[in-house]
Parts: sequence; C-alpha cells; structure tokens
Amino acid sequence: TVVNFFGRQKNTNVRVSLPAVCFVWQIAMIVLFGVFIRYDEESDAHWVEFKQENNITSDIENDFYFRYPSFQDVHVMIFVGFGFLMTFLKRYSFGGVGFNFLIASFGLQWALLMQGWFHSLDPATGKIYIGVESLINADFCCAGSLIAYGALLGKVSPVQLMVVTLFGITLFAVEEYIILDLLHCKDAGGSMVIHAFGGYYGLAISWVLYRPNLHQSKRLNGSVYHSDMFAMIGTLFLWMFWPSFNSAITDHGDGQHRAAINTYLALASSVLTTVAISSMSQKRGKLDMVHIQNATLAGGVAMGTAAEFMITPYGSLIVGFCTGIISTFGYLFVTPCLENSLKLQDTCGVHNLHAAPGMLGGFIGAIVAAAASESVYSKEGLINTFDFEGEFANRSPGTQGGFQAAGVCVAIAFGLVGGAIVGFILRFPIWGDPADDNCFDDEVYWEVPEEEETIPPVLEYNNHMIHKHQDM
Amino acid sequence: TVVNFFGRQKNTNVRVSLPAVCFVWQIAMIVLFGVFIRYDEESDAHWVEFKQENNITSDIENDFYFRYPSFQDVHVMIFVGFGFLMTFLKRYSFGGVGFNFLIASFGLQWALLMQGWFHSLDPATGKIYIGVESLINADFCCAGSLIAYGALLGKVSPVQLMVVTLFGITLFAVEEYIILDLLHCKDAGGSMVIHAFGGYYGLAISWVLYRPNLHQSKRLNGSVYHSDMFAMIGTLFLWMFWPSFNSAITDHGDGQHRAAINTYLALASSVLTTVAISSMSQKRGKLDMVHIQNATLAGGVAMGTAAEFMITPYGSLIVGFCTGIISTFGYLFVTPCLENSLKLQDTCGVHNLHAAPGMLGGFIGAIVAAAASESVYSKEGLINTFDFEGEFANRSPGTQGGFQAAGVCVAIAFGLVGGAIVGFILRFPIWGDPADDNCFDDEVYWEVPEEEETIPPVLEYNNHMIHKHQDM
Amino acid sequence: TVVNFFGRQKNTNVRVSLPAVCFVWQIAMIVLFGVFIRYDEESDAHWVEFKQENNITSDIENDFYFRYPSFQDVHVMIFVGFGFLMTFLKRYSFGGVGFNFLIASFGLQWALLMQGWFHSLDPATGKIYIGVESLINADFCCAGSLIAYGALLGKVSPVQLMVVTLFGITLFAVEEYIILDLLHCKDAGGSMVIHAFGGYYGLAISWVLYRPNLHQSKRLNGSVYHSDMFAMIGTLFLWMFWPSFNSAITDHGDGQHRAAINTYLALASSVLTTVAISSMSQKRGKLDMVHIQNATLAGGVAMGTAAEFMITPYGSLIVGFCTGIISTFGYLFVTPCLENSLKLQDTCGVHNLHAAPGMLGGFIGAIVAAAASESVYSKEGLINTFDFEGEFANRSPGTQGGFQAAGVCVAIAFGLVGGAIVGFILRFPIWGDPADDNCFDDEVYWEVPEEEETIPPVLEYNNHMIHKHQDM
Repeated sequence: TVVNFFGRQKNTNVRVSLPAVCFVWQIAMIVLFGVFIRYDEESDAHWVEFKQENNITSDIENDFYFRYPSFQDVHVMIFVGFGFLMTFLKRYSFGGVGFNFLIASFGLQWALLMQGWFHSLDPATGKIYIGVESLINADFCCAGSLIAYGALLGKVSPVQLMVVTLFGITLFAVEEYIILDLLHCKDAGGSMVIHAFGGYYGLAISWVLYRPNLHQSKRLNGSVYHSDMFAMIGTLFLWMFWPSFNSAITDHGDGQHRAAINTYLALASSVLTTVAISSMSQKRGKLDMVHIQNATLAGGVAMGTAAEFMITPYGSLIVGFCTGIISTFGYLFVTPCLENSLKLQDTCGVHNLHAAPGMLGGFIGAIVAAAASESVYSKEGLINTFDFEGEFANRSPGTQGGFQAAGVCVAIAFGLVGGAIVGFILRFPIWGDPADDNCFDDEVYWEVPEEEETIPPVLEYNNHMIHKHQDM
Repeated sequence: TVVNFFGRQKNTNVRVSLPAVCFVWQIAMIVLFGVFIRYDEESDAHWVEFKQENNITSDIENDFYFRYPSFQDVHVMIFVGFGFLMTFLKRYSFGGVGFNFLIASFGLQWALLMQGWFHSLDPATGKIYIGVESLINADFCCAGSLIAYGALLGKVSPVQLMVVTLFGITLFAVEEYIILDLLHCKDAGGSMVIHAFGGYYGLAISWVLYRPNLHQSKRLNGSVYHSDMFAMIGTLFLWMFWPSFNSAITDHGDGQHRAAINTYLALASSVLTTVAISSMSQKRGKLDMVHIQNATLAGGVAMGTAAEFMITPYGSLIVGFCTGIISTFGYLFVTPCLENSLKLQDTCGVHNLHAAPGMLGGFIGAIVAAAASESVYSKEGLINTFDFEGEFANRSPGTQGGFQAAGVCVAIAFGLVGGAIVGFILRFPIWGDPADDNCFDDEVYWEVPEEEETIPPVLEYNNHMIHKHQDM
Repeated sequence: TVVNFFGRQKNTNVRVSLPAVCFVWQIAMIVLFGVFIRYDEESDAHWVEFKQENNITSDIENDFYFRYPSFQDVHVMIFVGFGFLMTFLKRYSFGGVGFNFLIASFGLQWALLMQGWFHSLDPATGKIYIGVESLINADFCCAGSLIAYGALLGKVSPVQLMVVTLFGITLFAVEEYIILDLLHCKDAGGSMVIHAFGGYYGLAISWVLYRPNLHQSKRLNGSVYHSDMFAMIGTLFLWMFWPSFNSAITDHGDGQHRAAINTYLALASSVLTTVAISSMSQKRGKLDMVHIQNATLAGGVAMGTAAEFMITPYGSLIVGFCTGIISTFGYLFVTPCLENSLKLQDTCGVHNLHAAPGMLGGFIGAIVAAAASESVYSKEGLINTFDFEGEFANRSPGTQGGFQAAGVCVAIAFGLVGGAIVGFILRFPIWGDPADDNCFDDEVYWEVPEEEETIPPVLEYNNHMIHKHQDM
C-alpha cells in the first residue's frame, strides 16, 4: 500500500483486478460472439454460390479488395499510430504503447458487437454478419476510447482504462447510431463521431479525476530525446495513413478516391502552419516537438466529415491551414488555461488535436454539405454522395447541412455527459490508480529493466580480454 | 583470437568467411536464376496477348491486384516485424535487425529456386515461372529460418546463420512439398510448415549448440528501456499484419476475406489473456514486456492453418484465448525448464511463440477440417476451400483431418532431425562464433559507435559561446 | 547572435523568416490551387455519370484501386523512410525527421502545380485535374529535394531547406518534362529524374556551401547506438517498399507486376554484396552500420529505370550485385575523397546511394531498352511497354536506348547547374544557417528536452516511499 504525502492511501496492486477483468470480459466476448456473430456473404464459403446467384463476374468485386488496404492502414494507425504517439513521456512509454494495445484489442471485439446490434443485426436470423468493413468500423470505434486515453495518460490504472473503453465503445455505438442512422449524417472519417466525441469524453473524465497535487509527479511529466523520437513514429504513421482513415468506408470509386486526395492536402497544409506558429512562439524561433508531433495531424481530424464531399482541393488546403494554426495555439494557450482555470489536466492535449478540430470538422462538413448542388455533384453524384434515397430521397442539401450541425452537438453531448458519469465511476477507490507522486511512471504497472550504468566498463573489459589474448 | 575463461580458443574474425559466403552464394543465385527463373504470364510483357487469348476483360484481374497489398504486409513482417522483435537485447540490436536483414535477403532468393523446383517447375521448358504469389511464398519460406534465428540470437556468427538459412530453406521446401502436395494438406498461414517446423528446427540447433557457460554473458542477456521499445515496433507490425500473413495466399474472394477476419479476432483475444496471465504471475500485478512482446502474437500463429476454414468468429476468439494463456505460461515455466532440464537455451523463447502454438495450430486445423460439412461450406464452397479436385475429388473432410494431423508430425520431424544435423555441422570450429563470455554483444561483429559521455559539457560549451558573444 | 571562432557572425534566429516563408508559401499554394487544381474524372462526383458514358462496368476499374496501395507505400518511404534514415546523427534526429516532414509537406503541394502545368494542364479549361497518380508523382517529385537534403544534413537552416525545395521541385518538373515528354524516355522509378538529379543537385549545393571549418562540429557528426537503430527504421521501410516505388506509376497489369519483382530481386542481391564489402573492409570483418543503412538500398535506385522492362530476374540480381559493391566502395573511398580533394561535404553520402547508382540505373535502362525485341516483349507488349504510339510509333528500341542515355545526361546537367545556382543563393547571409562549430546540433532549431541525469534517484525515492509505508 502506498500513501502519498497527503495521507490518501493508494493501492496500485492490480494482480487480482486486471486478470479478472481481462478474463471475464474476454469470456463474455466469446459467448456473445457465439450467439450473435457470423461471417457475411462475402467472407462465407457460400460466396461461390452467392457470386453465381448475383451475377458477380469476378472475385475482385468482393468488398475485401476495395477496403482491405485501407483497413490495414487504419489498423496501423490504431496500434502503432496512437500507441507510439503516447510514448513521448520519458518513463511512461511502456504504458503508452502497451495499454493502448490492451484496450484497443478489447475494444474492437466489443465494438463488433455494439455496432452490429445497432447497425446490422438481421432481424430475421438475429445474427450480425461481419466483413472487412465491420473490422474497419470496429477499429474506428476504438479510436474514440484511445483518444480519451490521451487525456488520461499516466494518471490511471489499466483496469480503469478497461472501464473507460467498455463505456466508451458503448456510448460510441449509441451516438453513432443517432448521428448516422437517425439524423442521416455523413461522417466517413469521424470528425464528429470519433474525434469530437472521443476528445470530449476524455476531457470530461479527466476533469472529474482532477488531481490537485499532480505537480508531485512533475519530474516525470516530460520527454527525453529518444522518447520524442519514438513519438514521431506514431505521428508519422498517423499522418501518412490518415487519407486511408478518412476514405476507408466511403463509397466505392470516386468517394474513396476524393476522400484520400482531400485528406492528403489538408494534412500537408497543417504541417506548414504548425511549423510557422511553433517557431513564432519560441525564443529564437526554435520548434517545439509537442507541436510537430500533434498539431500537424489536425488537418486530418478536421477533414473527417468533409473529405468525401466536393470540398475542392484548395478548400482542403484552407481547412488544413486553419486547423494547424488553431491546434498549435491550443497547445500554447488552451492546455495551460484548461489546467489552471478549469482544473482539467490533459496529458496529451487531446483538446487541441481531437476535440476542437473534430468539432470544427463537423461544422465544416455541415457547411460543405449545405452548399452542395447538382451542378457540382451531378444529379446522380449528389444522391450517391449523400445517400438521398429511401426515406431521405427528398432531403435538400441545406437540410442535410442542418442535420450535420445537429450531429456535432450530439457527439459533444455524449462525450461530455458520458465522460462525467464514467469519471465518477472511476473515482471509486478500487481501481488501483497511482498516487499523485507516482503518476507518469512505468514502475507502477510494469517490470521495468534496470538501467545499466556500466556499458563502458563492460566494453573495456572485453577490449582488455581481446588485447590480452592477442598478446599471447 | 579470443580465449575464454576456460581456455577454449574462439576466433570471431569473419573477414574472410563472411564475404566469401556472401559472394559465392550470391553468384550461385545469379547463375541458377539465369538457368531456371522466368516471369510468369501475368508479369511478362506477353500479358497483353495473354489477356486477349483468355478473354480477361481487365488488368485488374491480374493476380498482382489480389495479392500485392498482402505481399507488402508480409514483407514488413519479415524485415521489420521479425527484425525489430529481436532488438530487445540491450547490446545486440544491430545483430538482431541486421542479421535478420542479411539472412532473409539471401533466403528469399534460394526459396524462389527451391520452391520453384518442387512446386512449379514446368516440365516442358524446364523453367520456373514467378509472380507475386511466388514472392509471398519466398518470404514465408524465410520466416522458418528467421524463427530458428530467434532461438540462436546472440550465440552464433553471421556465417553460421547463413548456413542455418541455406539448410532451413532447403528443408522447408521439402517438408512443404510433402505436406501440401503429397499429403494435400491446407496450411495457408503456415502453422505447420512455417511455425512448427521453424520453431523445432531452431530449438534442435540450439540444443546441439548448448553452452554450459553462457552465464558468463549474463550481464548482456537482458533489455534496457529503449531496446524494449524498439522490440515493440516489431511486435506491433507482426500483430497488425498477421491477418495479411494468414490470408496472403488463400483463395481469391471469400478465402482471403475470411482468413483475415479470423486472424484479426484470434490476435485480439490473445492480447487479453496474455495480459491476464502476465499480471497474475508477477508481484503487485506488474506486466512483463517479454510476454507482451511475444505471447500476444500466439493467436496469429495458431490460426495459421484454420484461418481459411469456417472456424466461425467465436471459434477464432477461443483459439486466441487458449494460445495466449499457453504461450505466456511457456515464457514463465517452459523456457526456464528447457534450459535447466533439457540443456536448451532459447534466447527469444521461440518454443512458446512458434513451436508450441504452431503445433497446436496444426491440430486445430485438423479438427476444423474434419468437422467440415456441406451444410456449413455449401457443396462448391467445400470443394473450393479444401481443393477436393482431381485425384483428391473423393476425399472426405474426416480423411482430410487425418492428413492434416499427419502433416503436423512431418513438420515437427523435419524440424527436429534437420535441426540436429545442422547443429552438428555448426559445431565445427570454423564458423567464427563468439566465446561464452562474449555472447549477446554487438561489439563482436559490428563497428559500434562509442557512447558519448559528454552531451552536457558540449551543450554547456555552446551555451557558453552563445552567451559570451551575446555580451559582445 | 553567434560568432564562431573566426569571427564570422551567424544569426540562427529564424523566428521571423521561418514563419514568414511558411505562411507566404502556403497562402500562395491555396491561391494557385484555387485557380488551377480540380478533381479528375475518377475522383469527381461525376464519376457515376462518367462510368455510364464510358461503359465502365465496375468501380474497381477506378485507378484508385490500381495505385492506392502503392501510393501509401511511397508515402511511407517519403516521410518515414527518408525521414528516419536521416536520424542517425546523435544529436540531429529531430532535424532529420522533422525538417524532412516540413519540406516534403510543402514540396508535394508545389509539385502538384508544377507537374500539372507541365504534364496535364487541360488547354481547354486551363485546369489541372488530379487523381491518385498525381499524388504519387508529387511524392516522387519531393524525393529529389529530400535526397539533396541528405547531402546538406546538419549544415543548413530550415529556411534554406524551403528554398532548396522550392527550386528543387521547379527544376525537377522541367527536367522531367524534357526527359519524359520531349525525349520520350521511360523512367518509372526515377533512376534518372529522381535519383541522379536529386543526388547531383544536393552535391552541387553542398559544394558551393563548403565549410572549411566543419571539423569544429566533429564531436556531433556521428551516431550513437540508439540513433543507428532509428535510422534502421528508415532503411527498412525504404528497402521493403521500394518495389512499390518502382512499380507505382508503371502500366496496369504486367508492368506493375514485373517492376515489383525486378526491384524485389535487385534489393535482395544488394544486401549480400554490401555485407560482403563492408565486412572485407574492416578489421576482424566487423560490419559498419553506415553501409548496412545505405548501400543495401542501391539496388532499388539502380532498378528505377529498367524495372518495368524485361530485364529478366537474373538481370535484376546482377544489377543489385554490382550496385551493392559500388555503393559500399563509395562510402569507403569516394566520400572521403570528395571531402578532401573536391571540398565537398556530403553528410549522408548521397553520392553513393543516389547520384552514382541513379546514373548507373539510367544507363542500365538505356542498354535494356536498346536490347528490346518483339520476340521477348511480343509485338503489342513492346508498343505497350515503351509507348511507341503517336509521334513515336516508328521509334526503334535502339533509338529509344539512345534517348534514354541522353535523358541521364539531362538529369545530371540539371542537377549540377541548378544546384550550383541554388547554392549561391543560399550563401546570402540572411538564411539563419548555423556556425561551423554549431552544425549537426538540434539545439539550434529545436527545443530539446533536458537530459535527466537522475532516473536512479527518482526510482530510489519511490522505492523508499513504498517500503516506508509498507512498514506502517
């Protein structure tokens, strides 16, 4: 048992709780998958028959070939991108990449179930049929909880993170159902449903879990040279593959094509304005790695909704231009302000990278949708892009824009309310979270290898041996 | 010449042998490629005509587009995945990633020839015709030898590794021919032919090369903080791309699709049980990086055979659940036991990650194959999945299951017998292997940069200069 | 203001110039994109109509599916490959990967415009229509400037790099237009237009910027153990994805397929000869990381032109064999000689990895083109591979070979002359470049985290607290 300076007892022993949570939840997944989850017609061995019945002439028409390369890119973003982005702390790299690995692995299973129940449960059979698009959506769904982890990094136990993820995935599936199905919004890259929701969810949790004495861990709340390099691995894989993220589940053909181009351009533009603001803000124009690691990605976040629309290439550049500036200003001014005024400690600055750019991206999407016209999209292109079919056949672009804006508000509301509730749950003193003077420290939850102080003596010893025997 | 404490002379100079082996073998490859290897009809300029003759309507039907994304993922697993997984030692990271690079680059050339002779030599022309599927198979073939390297890491010279690879590829091609062609087994992701074979091959070699005084290098047989982070790069790229590994050469369409889904699920499940067992096994529930780096991958290994079958999504979760537990227990109990009782030193624990899960995966595949039925697969799907065509048209699923089980035994037998023979060859005192007190040390085979002890003085000096001249 | 030992004043403050350049150029990009750049018919919402009008039966025929996986691989090469390859210096890793990120993000925007004006401006509308192939070409275009950065690494300011990139992209587009359009050369992987041009461009700049007192920064011009490991990330992603680089914009079908195979083989062969020469050159046969990090890639550079031709698999092995040797010899002998005799400081040795192998690759392409025949390619295959259509319908392979050789000379001339001019521009004392004793140091342009000297005390303190309170 650890007692911090203020006498609050902290038991960081998770030897019972962590294995228990892992086993119980994994067994629950197996049972629920057994009851509900089956292969869809494109991944089932009946595909051979399905092809014949539907006059599909070639295996290449299987959705696998439209989406699998994008899926793998998204998968890299979730596990290496988010994971390594959180390795920047000098002594929390194991926790950054390792707990990210744990909660994403649990989250994607629970996401397949939750999203299946809400979006693709076949009422006739009571089954959920999954294919490659389901895997992408499951990865997306995890992203929300991983963003929330960014706000909590170093201050919570792995058991708490499993709780954050369980509720995060659940809330995600509900808000996604409301936004995409009921409001019939488009949000291919998830500015609203992933980034705004995930960002505010994490911020609300962190606000409830405020630690007034976190300064006691200040010595560990920073980077060293090589931990910043590891974080750049995360940054770059996120940056490079974001075009795949925003295009992964858009329409076949021009939809995927356009979403990739728009995201590529917005991201490039973000880099330049991030560098500009970062350099302006420091003595002698020196760049700050925190900005380069994070704000360069804001263009991708902000294009999450509008990427599949006809936003035009220069429109994409403008989005990246503005969000790069806003995000960097966030790191410079908003994060310190949140901590001092709002009592909100946001380790990775998810407010600046996800919450604000995501909200912005949602509104950008609303504006671009409202401005859509048949002359720009063509008659069929407009129907195709916004799915103005069935009960939504008569919706106008203007109305669509209004619903898109409403979607942003739903996402934020779910994030804030859900996060506050989950935050209170996490305040029960049973979760094994670290004491205030023990945060940002892998020692608490990991067997950390001893630092060797003696490389030079060892080498010296070898050289000594070599020379000695060469003399013989 | 280095003499260890016990007077056994060790000459680690490879200045003649390593270049000689590289040159001779590379020249041999060029000559043999000149005699045997040609482009297949899909990579030859005659494709334009071939398309017309075969009524292929689109270039997208070229096998390149079905398999190239998976190929690149497999390629990353071989070079970054296996390579970085072996960088965890504090002072053998150069050797881990560098020798992996060397032997895979040689191995894939020799594999194209060996697999070509056994599987695709055209008797009419005496040529081997290669395309993208050949490249994937060549990478797979290398994986067997790279797994063996895991057992030997830090204890052998690069020349010995070239020998391990030459024989490893050769043995692989023969056992693969027996298992896939003669026994007509299915083994798309290579639980049997890659993992069980490669694991036991490496273990047998390591057993023959037992070093009773290896404790003399104990100071270097461990990780430091940042070397563990480099190893996580390997772990994650293996983990993320394993769905591509298991689906890369399965049937177009549903086969690739299903194999990717099953592997994705098994891997996710492995992570949770690995974390659970790792936490249970340590004081205060702390996690061990060795387990996270390795046992999380066991689900992918164990799905290597069954991934393309209709194992069902929950079946995949169960496979990952069990193998995560078994593999972590292996690291906790089997590896120490092997070293103490069997005199078998297994640096990376390939027994727990490859040999045992691979064997298990083979038997899982046998069971799932034996349980196959027309009602689950459809009549055509069953024929398609198991290739019940030609001379095997009348084989029943039950019989197939028996042959699959026989295949596991063939793979293990080839690994053990082949490894023992190669181990004895490697005991000749001509290969430049390190002395017992010199293992796990990059100094032996690499120009290692000197550690700088003086970063702070340098910075101080610069600051001094800056201030001095600002005063001027 | 910093004054070096020789009294030359150096102001490395870029607080005005760097933000100014970033803002002005990014705003210029937005304006020019607004005027010129539009989606092409495959990424525009009119695709739905375009398909119907052109009898395209499936969305999978959209060029996106032919090229997007290769694009993403190329993207990884540009940002992670080139970026991390330049992290090998002990204290310039931020600058290596960070400035690479900055200039590539700017460069790709400018490249879309420049290449658009020269190659795809529609005279009817005055617009440039972009799709996934444009993005690949833009990345390629950046590669030239990133190669030049390799020669300048650690010796220039980020503002200078923006200038290098602005002119580099411009020169690239012109020489590419001359070589590909006017001379009608083939150069899919850019041996000539990317590597020879980029290499000589960087060398010429570095020659003009010669620093006689660079030895004052010698203490920082080297690697440490972990910086060499970061560089291996760059090396391996370049190596693995080079088949995608050389095949990304070749003809659909056999062209892409063949280019990938040839590059895969040449690279494998390069690794073996690099290891051989590296080992031969050092005492006791030890390998040098500089060679492994760089010369192993020479086979990919040298296959840039010929990869799509029928060079045969063993021809590819021979190319890799020779260039691995040549490149390693370059690092051993040519780089020191350039510095001492020619007064040319080439930080990354781009002469050996890009300039020389690129030139060689151009001539190899010329020879293979000249040797082409209908018997090898088929009548249609020959037309298809070399685009002997329109005004070039009567060109013979021999003539093509001559034009290919002329193309190499154009590329080198552009590199040398353009580089010399840009070098003189960069000598104006307004760009904020570092003093001679301040090169290779991230402190100049980055907020570098303080090294913690006190990990053990911190841990001790925690352990102390734990034990103390356990006693309570």
